[in-house]
Amino acid sequence: MLNGTTCPASLLSIKDALEVLEGKWKLLILFVLSSGPKRFSQLSREIKGISDRTLSKELKLLEMNQLVTRTVTHTPLPEVHYEITPHGRSLAAVLDELHKWGLLHRSEIIRD
Amino acid sequence: MLNGTTCPASLLSIKDALEVLEGKWKLLILFVLSSGPKRFSQLSREIKGISDRTLSKELKLLEMNQLVTRTVTHTPLPEVHYEITPHGRSLAAVLDELHKWGLLHRSEIIRD
Repeated sequence: MLNGTTCPASLLSIKDALEVLEGKWKLLILFVLSSGPKRFSQLSREIKGISDRTLSKELKLLEMNQLVTRTVTHTPLPEVHYEITPHGRSLAAVLDELHKWGLLHRSEIIRD
Repeated sequence: MLNGTTCPASLLSIKDALEVLEGKWKLLILFVLSSGPKRFSQLSREIKGISDRTLSKELKLLEMNQLVTRTVTHTPLPEVHYEITPHGRSLAAVLDELHKWGLLHRSEIIRD
């Protein structure tokens, strides 16, 4: 991709992706949901540093972009679960590369 | 990556990457710089919608994280150029996957 040509179409598709995934929480939420459906409280516990207000806002945006579904079950009390969608799982390669780069960046920064 | 296990170490490295790349502009700036060194005004023109104030702030953060260098040349007037570093170029795979996902997301959203 970084091969010296930066065509507007590529710029647009990267911009599209970044606008959907903007911020430091959405990809983390999707990553945690990749191990299975979770209640709000579980997400809040597993993602250190996120406030309930932010988590609630990010889940709504992820739902709007068809990356997460929200399901209410009555067993007998109403219970809400969040689950990653197949479209959400299509971000696996992005997460993979971010994971690898995060390791590289940490070694580059700590090395200096 | 989205294979059902979400170990804390992976969560941390993704969080590391997202904190460095946070926001919708840094990766776009790196993508535009991948075609060669650029002056501020060129960057401002090529990245639609970014304000000079935001561009200046993002360039400083990218410099701080060793993803971009800022060079002042005197030819004879002082001229400032920004250039992507090898560490910045190591984001090629992340950009590649974001580009592909942006195309997929656009087709998924437009299909509905």
